[in-house]
Amino acid sequence: MSGKISLVGIGPGHHDHMTGRALAAIAEADVVVGYSTYIKLVADLLEGKEVIRKGMTEELDRAVNALERAREGKKVALISSGDSGVYGMAGPTYEVLFQAGWTPDSDIAVEVVPGASAINACAALVGAPLTHDFCSISLSDLLTPWPVIARRLDAVAAADFVVALYNPKSGRRTQQIVQAQQLFLRHRRPDTPVAVVKSAYRRRERIELTTLAHMSECDIGMLTTVLIGNSHTFVQHGLMVTPRGYANKYDLDDGGNTRSGEKPGRSLSTGLLGWMANLRADHAEGASAAALAAQHRLPADYIEAVLAAPAEEESAAAAPLEEAQE
Amino acid sequence: MSGKISLVGIGPGHHDHMTGRALAAIAEADVVVGYSTYIKLVADLLEGKEVIRKGMTEELDRAVNALERAREGKKVALISSGDSGVYGMAGPTYEVLFQAGWTPDSDIAVEVVPGASAINACAALVGAPLTHDFCSISLSDLLTPWPVIARRLDAVAAADFVVALYNPKSGRRTQQIVQAQQLFLRHRRPDTPVAVVKSAYRRRERIELTTLAHMSECDIGMLTTVLIGNSHTFVQHGLMVTPRGYANKYDLDDGGNTRSGEKPGRSLSTGLLGWMANLRADHAEGASAAALAAQHRLPADYIEAVLAAPAEEESAAAAPLEEAQE
Repeated sequence: MSGKISLVGIGPGHHDHMTGRALAAIAEADVVVGYSTYIKLVADLLEGKEVIRKGMTEELDRAVNALERAREGKKVALISSGDSGVYGMAGPTYEVLFQAGWTPDSDIAVEVVPGASAINACAALVGAPLTHDFCSISLSDLLTPWPVIARRLDAVAAADFVVALYNPKSGRRTQQIVQAQQLFLRHRRPDTPVAVVKSAYRRRERIELTTLAHMSECDIGMLTTVLIGNSHTFVQHGLMVTPRGYANKYDLDDGGNTRSGEKPGRSLSTGLLGWMANLRADHAEGASAAALAAQHRLPADYIEAVLAAPAEEESAAAAPLEEAQE
Repeated sequence: MSGKISLVGIGPGHHDHMTGRALAAIAEADVVVGYSTYIKLVADLLEGKEVIRKGMTEELDRAVNALERAREGKKVALISSGDSGVYGMAGPTYEVLFQAGWTPDSDIAVEVVPGASAINACAALVGAPLTHDFCSISLSDLLTPWPVIARRLDAVAAADFVVALYNPKSGRRTQQIVQAQQLFLRHRRPDTPVAVVKSAYRRRERIELTTLAHMSECDIGMLTTVLIGNSHTFVQHGLMVTPRGYANKYDLDDGGNTRSGEKPGRSLSTGLLGWMANLRADHAEGASAAALAAQHRLPADYIEAVLAAPAEEESAAAAPLEEAQE
């Protein structure tokens, strides 16, 4: 008798944004397990199935229930909203399975079905805020000490990431979002664009565009995701957009031609190899590693290692052009 | 005559992992525009449609073509792999549209269709590495100066994020991944788990589990995503898993009961309010703000602000329990 556990990410909540595999995994399941709010989102897919509804803090119970049913030979769909890997049930379930002595070659198969996470859904609704490097941080301190969270907020605010805050606020946890705002304001302009998105693609969807200075005054709850732009993010016609680069390499006013000194499909003149060459030249002219570290805001021992390495040429011209992996 | 541009994220590449809305947007389209590699992934959905295939660096051309056809009243699907917001076409397209004087109330409608990004797809294949806070960083220096990228790598390595590296290496760009490894090794153990995933859910899918010390020796190319675990990530039975918390609050050996001093569904004793109370107590006993800043590795002015703020009690007991937003 061989059971199966499918860890299914159902996406933001509307069936249109579920994947075919997520729909199929639920259709194939004998048993569907999940937090009661998420079970409601797929209620019309559950006819004839055993349904196990759990409270919001009962993640481990959900995993234990799924394992029990799978041991009886049942096919179980354990659902998460968004992506089951992102703050979802995939992690806790593997931990419970390992604890119970499960191995991948046992007679219980496990599958993780990916989905669009809240960050993807919220971004799609407000424009294109994730076009450059981004982070996801949960403000919940139920399982993570506050200093760990605060250090992360400080680090990514300084390094100019676009940031999504998950679990920004709850009935009990009201101050974390205020602290996050304070930490960001140490590094970012008060008018940095911020989107506050509640229940994306669900019945009570609500979108508010605001700024870093005002974000903690917004209506933020347990079903809200907060997106904070980077230093280049802008709002135009009610859409929040982050440019894809920092260099304005292509001149949109000039029909998309490259700016002087740059080549299409090639690294910037300030890309790794160009930057290393400049660093060596500045060092040869007398700039110390410490001075260069301060100038580039990078660790001095990293600068020293770069200066000590042999100079590299750009690889063979026959190599294919660069690709943007989306 | 009113046209439409749908910015469609097709997910990792296999139709099973496309959303219903992504399939519908392509089905409704008169014209499908995209990078030739991604067009191939949806080739069987394109019968009877005009198809515009573009090279990998021609992102702006794709957006311009989409706008031209939409102005003719056509429905255009502009496809990206993964999520069209994540290093995809959503951002460049909005920039081209704004440049051309488009506004949301013009007769060209624009829709962003979210999808599972490479980070979600790769994570699903290797286990559950994204259960805690994570970042996505592109190593491409075609549009971003290297010092910006290096500062980000340094910041998130220090702050213990799980990190996905997009565009880790190409025929021309071979040293960025080596530099990233060096920057990470300054903060993370050499045996930190790393997954190298190529062409997730596509015909030539290849998954390699390695460590930070060895990751730059792996077969890494333009279709690869590299996932670096945090300090708690482990590999068991060939699966890479990040625990959902730092505190081991729930004792799996003891049937999932909470450990001493902690309450289920409540903030940790080291959560924000508990941490603030301890900080005030330590300060009252003589620890300076500077000493506390060093101890907690947080900015001194942030510690001073926390000490200066009035003490807060946890909000009303009537508030609902905490929820994990997945």
